[in-house]
Amino acid sequence: MSHNTFGHLFRVTTWGESHGRALGCVIDGCPPGLRLTEADIQVWLNKRRPGQGRYVSQRQEPDAVRILSGVFEDDAVRARFGGQVTTGTPISLIIDNTDQRSRDYADIAASFRPGHADYAYFAKYGVRDYRGGGRQSARETAARVAAGAVARKVLGETVVVRAALTQVGPHAVDRERWDWEETARNPFWCPDAGMVPVWGAHLDTTRKAGSSTGAIIEVEAAGIPVGWGAPVYGKLDAELAAALMSINAAKGVEIGAGFAAAALSGEEN
Amino acid sequence: MSHNTFGHLFRVTTWGESHGRALGCVIDGCPPGLRLTEADIQVWLNKRRPGQGRYVSQRQEPDAVRILSGVFEDDAVRARFGGQVTTGTPISLIIDNTDQRSRDYADIAASFRPGHADYAYFAKYGVRDYRGGGRQSARETAARVAAGAVARKVLGETVVVRAALTQVGPHAVDRERWDWEETARNPFWCPDAGMVPVWGAHLDTTRKAGSSTGAIIEVEAAGIPVGWGAPVYGKLDAELAAALMSINAAKGVEIGAGFAAAALSGEEN
Amino acid sequence: MSHNTFGHLFRVTTWGESHGRALGCVIDGCPPGLRLTEADIQVWLNKRRPGQGRYVSQRQEPDAVRILSGVFEDDAVRARFGGQVTTGTPISLIIDNTDQRSRDYADIAASFRPGHADYAYFAKYGVRDYRGGGRQSARETAARVAAGAVARKVLGETVVVRAALTQVGPHAVDRERWDWEETARNPFWCPDAGMVPVWGAHLDTTRKAGSSTGAIIEVEAAGIPVGWGAPVYGKLDAELAAALMSINAAKGVEIGAGFAAAALSGEEN
Amino acid sequence: MSHNTFGHLFRVTTWGESHGRALGCVIDGCPPGLRLTEADIQVWLNKRRPGQGRYVSQRQEPDAVRILSGVFEDDAVRARFGGQVTTGTPISLIIDNTDQRSRDYADIAASFRPGHADYAYFAKYGVRDYRGGGRQSARETAARVAAGAVARKVLGETVVVRAALTQVGPHAVDRERWDWEETARNPFWCPDAGMVPVWGAHLDTTRKAGSSTGAIIEVEAAGIPVGWGAPVYGKLDAELAAALMSINAAKGVEIGAGFAAAALSGEEN
Repeated sequence: MSHNTFGHLFRVTTWGESHGRALGCVIDGCPPGLRLTEADIQVWLNKRRPGQGRYVSQRQEPDAVRILSGVFEDDAVRARFGGQVTTGTPISLIIDNTDQRSRDYADIAASFRPGHADYAYFAKYGVRDYRGGGRQSARETAARVAAGAVARKVLGETVVVRAALTQVGPHAVDRERWDWEETARNPFWCPDAGMVPVWGAHLDTTRKAGSSTGAIIEVEAAGIPVGWGAPVYGKLDAELAAALMSINAAKGVEIGAGFAAAALSGEEN
Repeated sequence: MSHNTFGHLFRVTTWGESHGRALGCVIDGCPPGLRLTEADIQVWLNKRRPGQGRYVSQRQEPDAVRILSGVFEDDAVRARFGGQVTTGTPISLIIDNTDQRSRDYADIAASFRPGHADYAYFAKYGVRDYRGGGRQSARETAARVAAGAVARKVLGETVVVRAALTQVGPHAVDRERWDWEETARNPFWCPDAGMVPVWGAHLDTTRKAGSSTGAIIEVEAAGIPVGWGAPVYGKLDAELAAALMSINAAKGVEIGAGFAAAALSGEEN
Repeated sequence: MSHNTFGHLFRVTTWGESHGRALGCVIDGCPPGLRLTEADIQVWLNKRRPGQGRYVSQRQEPDAVRILSGVFEDDAVRARFGGQVTTGTPISLIIDNTDQRSRDYADIAASFRPGHADYAYFAKYGVRDYRGGGRQSARETAARVAAGAVARKVLGETVVVRAALTQVGPHAVDRERWDWEETARNPFWCPDAGMVPVWGAHLDTTRKAGSSTGAIIEVEAAGIPVGWGAPVYGKLDAELAAALMSINAAKGVEIGAGFAAAALSGEEN
Repeated sequence: MSHNTFGHLFRVTTWGESHGRALGCVIDGCPPGLRLTEADIQVWLNKRRPGQGRYVSQRQEPDAVRILSGVFEDDAVRARFGGQVTTGTPISLIIDNTDQRSRDYADIAASFRPGHADYAYFAKYGVRDYRGGGRQSARETAARVAAGAVARKVLGETVVVRAALTQVGPHAVDRERWDWEETARNPFWCPDAGMVPVWGAHLDTTRKAGSSTGAIIEVEAAGIPVGWGAPVYGKLDAELAAALMSINAAKGVEIGAGFAAAALSGEEN
């Protein structure tokens, strides 16, 4: 059994390896009549795009998305909706892999990187595309970002989802200095301007050491109506936890007060 | 809710409209280590390809399939398997639509063809890609043929699935003259050489009348092990019936003796 | 893999063997606020109940259904809805097996009945409850009838689903004499009063011969809105075909003109 | 849409409200030939059973489980397996609710408890069984425990899953004093004997204050083979996170080093 699909009514199936021809996803269950162009998706992929600074992947490629199906536009549609819209049929998105630099993968082919899924894939399937991590590369998240851009269209304007990086290595932001605007002004999506140089220095040191570092991301969703999600096994908290935990290298998920809730006690109440 | 996926362990999600940029499918759950090239799939698409005679769709295009993910090949793989193999990750297949002749669809846009799903799509979604039938075009079956070619790799050599056309309009084949070899020698996959000219004449007449005609296809699967399929709701008969009935214009499915079984009676036993 | 669930938004999972303690189902996804009592379900189970005549199973039991979850009633609910309603949580239905006559199953345990799923279950699972057919007994359909009674509540009054038996062995009803009222007046749900004695005689002969006979059922659904079902793989025709074909002994499904559509031809048009 | 099912190949659907007639689950996909009796399940339910001390729910009931389907036993089965075994068909488990004390729920019916799902259910469904929390009661986990007991049979002896309570309110165990044996000797499944009286005092204070407190549970699974779980969206970490986060009041899930991994840094490497 394999499982590359997420979601129930709005279902996303992703495909593609890091150094294959392309990667992409099929979105099944998107409502019809939503305005959707490639530019609507590209803006989010551009935020994710590698090669935009010395702190991220040096891979150089535009990650240009194409919509292959599920949208339509003619004079009547333009008159009624203002432009191209979703039709309710599967939306197929594709992103070509253009940075497949001819490289010698012989060393990777013969060894397994600690902390990666290399060995798990090999043990499970007996064969793997090891180039750049193959299917287990975090490049898979490009397809999630593309699908997420479409999901935002479904959510509309009243639900606002935004995120910030709040800790890198041992260095956490000062919440007293939190400024959402600041996240757009530095390469770390850091909401605390004072922390930016600290993280920069930390990452420089880490990279020189040939090592890596951990981090914490905080996502805020505002404007969520009461009752979203199914009860019990498909409850919103569970779905979010699964989605986040399925991202490469994610090792923990908290919602609301999270683990700090454990220490909350009625003694003082 | 939409639903463009079929299967449980070997799951196929198809996408694409008749006159969109391309169509294709994602196969999730295909076992690893199966030899698979584009040629393995193309041979089946070639059988299906339109424009091969006056009796079928006049659409002219090669229906060339490309495998975008889920396969791998290097020296080690070649040494071990003999060539490119599946890796157990999603297999993305794409077929470009090249015969998008600039046509005036204004008449189709404003009307609904009887017996087609045009109106159902429009009533359900409120907007549709009407060019060539859009998503409801039988061109969707090209993706099924491609996925089926991969499924045959899973089945291996011991299971043999083959089919013949057994009735066109009121003209049924004579089972006494059944010859499987004959199905490859005429444009109808007809197993009865004597029926070929009858069908040809019938179809010429039908086409001149600007009409269409019905037909019956018989599929034979041999070498099926006991116990395939799940019990009750996922039983093999049920899955096959659903798969066949989901093909455009299919109005009936029989298995084994089918409806004739109703007349079987113990009176004579 | 097993598969004892049917449906997508309104999902039914059935369980139970012919001679186990009980059988039943869990309905997940039923909308809240629907009036539902055990009597609403029992009326349909009573129509199905065995032991009501010499032409059907001689099993004697009331098939009394109990609702174990998913409904609620208090003063406020009564004031608002008029009585007990569904709550949107899973509805668990149970029917006790009371006719577990102590019988010698030794002969069945050691042999397989032709035309039954006995051997398939044994080959697949290696062990089976052979008493009365176990899980593969058509007694499983009691759970479907119970779930169907709840589904009718969802459909409401505008959709009318009704059925008749139209052929038994080689004897088909005369459609000129079709009378829906008649189906309630004879033990065969036969719409043709003239056919009733013919079927009675046929079944008497069949039973004396220790044999069985085939039959055809016709179901009519009226008042269906345009657009029900998902496109392509979950289309209504496909779902209905799968549901019907998953019933024990069903070998064919037709929708609309069915196989007769094959002979329809444009020659005359 | 509702969603009361968890799992893919081994699927569990739970049903039941806190003060309804009963609660239970249907397990679909359990392999055949596993020894299974009610006692195998009851031992785990007994560990969970309320009313066993002043620190837990005062509800008094035996939570006796009955297996209604999916198992079989005859002389041949006993000779081959040693006793009753699973048959591969759905396993229906039921636990009667016997502690439905006649109580005045009027106060609960008219108000919503903070931190509970009362309001979410009401807003979503418009009607709810508020008695004891209805469907949103943590009593639902009794069905999970029962299903988990069957899942342990599938895992066999080589996979060992065990858990301990590691923090209550602000009081965390001293890992230097960790003793798995100790977890069976105190009412808190606490692995640190020295912490037991601290938690007892804390809970007494909390209860007197009419309040509640948080806690952290640590689960250890040993002997897991490489490759379990599907890649990407169904990866083991994601499935576990979803399962745990779907338990009432769970607000965080960590795997491995969890959030502490964020502070791990290559600076020192």
